[in-house]
Amino acid sequence: MRDHDGRAQSVTDQPADETMIDGVDTDRRAMMGLATGGLVSTLLGMTPTSAQAAAGIGLVGNAQAQPAGATGTPWWPSKYGKDDQVGATNLITPAKILDALKLVKTGKVYDMSHPYESSMPKFGERAFVLRIPGGPTGGPLGANNVIWHDEFLATEIGQVGTQMDGLGHIGMAFKGEDRSEMRFYNGFTAAEISGAYGLKKLGVENVKPIVTTGHLFDFVGLKGRNLNLGEEITVADLEACITRQKMPADAIKSGDCVFLNTGWGSLWNKDNAQFTKGEPGIGLEAAKWFISKDIVLIGADQWAIEVVPNPDANLAFPVHQELIAKNGIHIHENLVTAELAADGVSTFCYIMLPLKIKGATGSPGRPIALV
Amino acid sequence: MRDHDGRAQSVTDQPADETMIDGVDTDRRAMMGLATGGLVSTLLGMTPTSAQAAAGIGLVGNAQAQPAGATGTPWWPSKYGKDDQVGATNLITPAKILDALKLVKTGKVYDMSHPYESSMPKFGERAFVLRIPGGPTGGPLGANNVIWHDEFLATEIGQVGTQMDGLGHIGMAFKGEDRSEMRFYNGFTAAEISGAYGLKKLGVENVKPIVTTGHLFDFVGLKGRNLNLGEEITVADLEACITRQKMPADAIKSGDCVFLNTGWGSLWNKDNAQFTKGEPGIGLEAAKWFISKDIVLIGADQWAIEVVPNPDANLAFPVHQELIAKNGIHIHENLVTAELAADGVSTFCYIMLPLKIKGATGSPGRPIALV
Amino acid sequence: MRDHDGRAQSVTDQPADETMIDGVDTDRRAMMGLATGGLVSTLLGMTPTSAQAAAGIGLVGNAQAQPAGATGTPWWPSKYGKDDQVGATNLITPAKILDALKLVKTGKVYDMSHPYESSMPKFGERAFVLRIPGGPTGGPLGANNVIWHDEFLATEIGQVGTQMDGLGHIGMAFKGEDRSEMRFYNGFTAAEISGAYGLKKLGVENVKPIVTTGHLFDFVGLKGRNLNLGEEITVADLEACITRQKMPADAIKSGDCVFLNTGWGSLWNKDNAQFTKGEPGIGLEAAKWFISKDIVLIGADQWAIEVVPNPDANLAFPVHQELIAKNGIHIHENLVTAELAADGVSTFCYIMLPLKIKGATGSPGRPIALV
Amino acid sequence: MRDHDGRAQSVTDQPADETMIDGVDTDRRAMMGLATGGLVSTLLGMTPTSAQAAAGIGLVGNAQAQPAGATGTPWWPSKYGKDDQVGATNLITPAKILDALKLVKTGKVYDMSHPYESSMPKFGERAFVLRIPGGPTGGPLGANNVIWHDEFLATEIGQVGTQMDGLGHIGMAFKGEDRSEMRFYNGFTAAEISGAYGLKKLGVENVKPIVTTGHLFDFVGLKGRNLNLGEEITVADLEACITRQKMPADAIKSGDCVFLNTGWGSLWNKDNAQFTKGEPGIGLEAAKWFISKDIVLIGADQWAIEVVPNPDANLAFPVHQELIAKNGIHIHENLVTAELAADGVSTFCYIMLPLKIKGATGSPGRPIALV
Repeated sequence: MRDHDGRAQSVTDQPADETMIDGVDTDRRAMMGLATGGLVSTLLGMTPTSAQAAAGIGLVGNAQAQPAGATGTPWWPSKYGKDDQVGATNLITPAKILDALKLVKTGKVYDMSHPYESSMPKFGERAFVLRIPGGPTGGPLGANNVIWHDEFLATEIGQVGTQMDGLGHIGMAFKGEDRSEMRFYNGFTAAEISGAYGLKKLGVENVKPIVTTGHLFDFVGLKGRNLNLGEEITVADLEACITRQKMPADAIKSGDCVFLNTGWGSLWNKDNAQFTKGEPGIGLEAAKWFISKDIVLIGADQWAIEVVPNPDANLAFPVHQELIAKNGIHIHENLVTAELAADGVSTFCYIMLPLKIKGATGSPGRPIALV
Repeated sequence: MRDHDGRAQSVTDQPADETMIDGVDTDRRAMMGLATGGLVSTLLGMTPTSAQAAAGIGLVGNAQAQPAGATGTPWWPSKYGKDDQVGATNLITPAKILDALKLVKTGKVYDMSHPYESSMPKFGERAFVLRIPGGPTGGPLGANNVIWHDEFLATEIGQVGTQMDGLGHIGMAFKGEDRSEMRFYNGFTAAEISGAYGLKKLGVENVKPIVTTGHLFDFVGLKGRNLNLGEEITVADLEACITRQKMPADAIKSGDCVFLNTGWGSLWNKDNAQFTKGEPGIGLEAAKWFISKDIVLIGADQWAIEVVPNPDANLAFPVHQELIAKNGIHIHENLVTAELAADGVSTFCYIMLPLKIKGATGSPGRPIALV
Repeated sequence: MRDHDGRAQSVTDQPADETMIDGVDTDRRAMMGLATGGLVSTLLGMTPTSAQAAAGIGLVGNAQAQPAGATGTPWWPSKYGKDDQVGATNLITPAKILDALKLVKTGKVYDMSHPYESSMPKFGERAFVLRIPGGPTGGPLGANNVIWHDEFLATEIGQVGTQMDGLGHIGMAFKGEDRSEMRFYNGFTAAEISGAYGLKKLGVENVKPIVTTGHLFDFVGLKGRNLNLGEEITVADLEACITRQKMPADAIKSGDCVFLNTGWGSLWNKDNAQFTKGEPGIGLEAAKWFISKDIVLIGADQWAIEVVPNPDANLAFPVHQELIAKNGIHIHENLVTAELAADGVSTFCYIMLPLKIKGATGSPGRPIALV
Repeated sequence: MRDHDGRAQSVTDQPADETMIDGVDTDRRAMMGLATGGLVSTLLGMTPTSAQAAAGIGLVGNAQAQPAGATGTPWWPSKYGKDDQVGATNLITPAKILDALKLVKTGKVYDMSHPYESSMPKFGERAFVLRIPGGPTGGPLGANNVIWHDEFLATEIGQVGTQMDGLGHIGMAFKGEDRSEMRFYNGFTAAEISGAYGLKKLGVENVKPIVTTGHLFDFVGLKGRNLNLGEEITVADLEACITRQKMPADAIKSGDCVFLNTGWGSLWNKDNAQFTKGEPGIGLEAAKWFISKDIVLIGADQWAIEVVPNPDANLAFPVHQELIAKNGIHIHENLVTAELAADGVSTFCYIMLPLKIKGATGSPGRPIALV
């Protein structure tokens, strides 16, 4: 049905060691993982130049923007067609929906989202500012003296709290600091998608409602402990979970969503500095394993699903690029997975209904697991 | 299981003619319906005093805030208990969810939401302002030259576009302009719920995920035309729909949601001035009929579900008060119902997952109908 | 020209001991001054109820909202007339301006403002969020390929950074938690001035441009050290400054502005937690001395000009009330005064041009001293 | 003192006809000036591609982004040094300030700003959204029952209402749609100045306080009527004003500011659609005349100081580029000049104190004229 090999090929074409920068100070590389919580905050809002200065001692190891032309192989057109803006949610077919609903036996709902509030951990300079205008906002009107409240919210709406990355969120600058070639999902260029008032293409409004089968990988159960900052989840870990959780070997099917219970979410709103300093998560190896299963979305109880800093100190959020830009697969961050794990739920009906915010890079939501 | 009569009684205790103001100029009453689109915009953002001045010629007829003490009977405690903040979504039980999922036969999804964009009709002074910081927002970082986009949104997030009113949205000022007694759902006072940085109680984060049975009342099909501004939907209309759509007489059950296809939504982003000038919808009679069915939510393809201006020119948004404040029933506005109607879908599985925005008065969403 | 005695009388009518709450736990009172930086942040954004709970151990001592009816004597009408919204800037006459300009001998400019940036200390939950939409925001257009940048700012614009309080900022709830009588400058009620979309009266747009004589009181020079948190500046201190700085005894004249160099500003953007924890400043005694001089504005190198916490643990920001609400005198916060003090400048031409933001409670600005 | 000729030369090096695009449809050129108010709004927020599509019938004539490499001669380094970020406000010296203050004879203040309010004309998709959080925002606290109001503002703060353009606002894309070479004042590149969270260079915080001599050119007085949309002010008009207003031939000196009273400001908040549709103003000829006088700032009672659409239909806002990017001269828009003109004031002390909003592209303000 699709040319899966071709896509996998492009991944193979970009071996990790080709992306290494010669002559990097290995001492600085050794310092990776020493980032303070503040560093993450600073880094993400930082200018590229200063980010490079900090990179050697922080979140992204000594990753530095690459000289022009060095970034690798084109990943487009997408398997969904050269004009596609929908990505992997194309796989959410009526048949997938019917299959997923069959998993619902009791009607129990697991709420997989955190409340949105200003105290939640936020990355870089992102903000969450909510105000209630007036007290009340309006009224009284009429003999019935009706009054009402509104709320005014100023925030990176698709990139704070429990949020799903859309396809316009992540790209690659093929020529590094020279911004003349920046590419996104399906090869769309910055000129094609960028806009000060909303992305012109790849806005999250293109994403289909997600009602499909979800699978939880419980690494806390597997390891008997929360995973650690910088701990990479391997394919062997994934397979160990499948065995331990008694899932069929072929449990993960095209159109499914997968979730990681790492324990990192236990820090949410309790130790935000530690939460944002880095995280355990998957690396490129496990990402490619999931990609080979043709999934729609990967979610986790931490803020990037991937291991941060990456064990390859030259790489900054490579899993985001691999999933979103190269494969049209969504990332769902800051989920609540602990209750599912506590109840031993491995497979469920997952429902996430992304807001159609025109030109937005992601969506908040209230994802649920139904069993 | 519950004392339904008691609640209905409190409704009966407040007859419409008790809320009339003596000596109102009937000529001014006659002018109702002459509002311009601009008036609505102005009114909702207007001070109570100026709103009263305009009321005689506008949106809310000659409705005027009532003198102190005149507003009627307490409606609390709620049937869900004196401390309840969940309201009618308490009725979404596992059993209801299982029942609703049984309605899904084909896996077809109807998207019932509009895109969120600055051009959409907005009420009063509400705003929707989206910006993409930077181009891109961040990067390039790493040898992989990752770049990313965020979006920054400033808006009345729970009160623009396709949105569901939470229980803190609507209340009553018992003493009119004297704000010393303002009451909300379950009798919570302004002192208990108001907060400049988010409602302290009745925030939309309390609402449960909604997965239940939905019913569409197709008035366009019934009348063979779109309904008109100020046209009230009566109980007779509801019953005629049930008959015409071949629904069982007892189709509407406790815990269900109901939807109105009025045709008014055809104006969305086409003639926003007309769309916001007023609307067809239910009045108190039909509202009470739905309340007697113990529903969770009423939605419509217009902006308030209720008829505006109200045929009783003294009343301003009385259905909002009746449903939200007095009965804990949600209102879902600016829905897309035309496609369901076109396909003759009367009953379906309705899924709406309200965002848990702490202290917010409502929620955006991407409601869907599954059949 | 004015009935100064009458106004002073109203101050005398409200002796400090009348505002004491009987039976306050003196142990809790003793804990005042122990506030953490975080407490200030929390307090200002906090609900009244929780603020009371924290009050005994924090910023405002054990100050508690007073039972209804206890708050004291009406302070209106203002000496500028019962409808006045201009306040003490009425005193900025052409003659005052000419007098002030005569002080300019060298043309040297002292910039008395901090840059506005997200890292600056902010009080309570106030936010400062700036984004550059797009990169660039617009263009290229034309054969000349013009491009442009805008900025988008979301903030409490009149209440962050170097800012001047307008007359609608501060009031008194005469009945405590019962909000049925809240009064502001000139006795305007909450019903008269409140509005969700901007104050209806007393907005900062009413304030006149300020070009007048300014005087710096250099307490750092006087004491040979920075003042301490909670250290009250007394009238004796003011008089000692006048002597030390060789100002004439009658230096402070009607229509002048006065400024406090406390040294607290040295913490700005260096130790924000300490900066916001409290501060040295004037109490009611010195405030009344300045009021008796008929000044227009008091500014300081800290965030409230007044001593925080107040030595009378029952009082919360009483100087704000005394100056703004009762006397229409402005407060200018977070100024830069160190350079003036270092150069031994005591008297200068002060220029502050408040933005006419309709309905705002204060104004940012770039105040300067000209010598 | 400076190499003025060299700079003038670079202007001469770029004759208008070199910037013409061959083969432009002259019929489309003839349509310029037919723009609707809505077109301006749309255009400024529009994507470059769609802007080009509209250009032939609208605001910027048939201006189209130029093919790569065609845009002309470098204009850097600036005469103030290759690292300068201050621009023409470098000319505001103590001596200039003293000279300007000598013009003040009566102490009369002319307020040259409009109030900032949501109803004001705004360009493109710019927004102005003000809310008062809570009612009140905080309190009551203490036995003194203090309460307070804040305001929350979300807006393009430096680019709405009466506002002064900073040096980071305007640039040129040397290669048109290929954004690999975008230059600003002093040749700073996009890579050097762009930042999602504020400009990294050329932020308005670099601008010095402006206290200098101002001159009003009263074209309404000269012509006996308001100027018309698209009417270009010529050097002959400037000279006619000087003669009619009895200014010395050499009235305009280095470091001065100049202002245009066109009458267009009479539309402000009265006919916003017409106000924003285009405007009378100076073209490149008059701009260069002013540049030759070594001024600091040009202001006007309209929204861009320059004629819109430009008589050369290929050019989009060329005067902005000439003044800001090439010469570091500020533009002050949406000023109130009518009262000065009515009183026959030609020369005055001008005071504008730009806010130091770090990384912002412009500043609001409350400019005044003192006489």
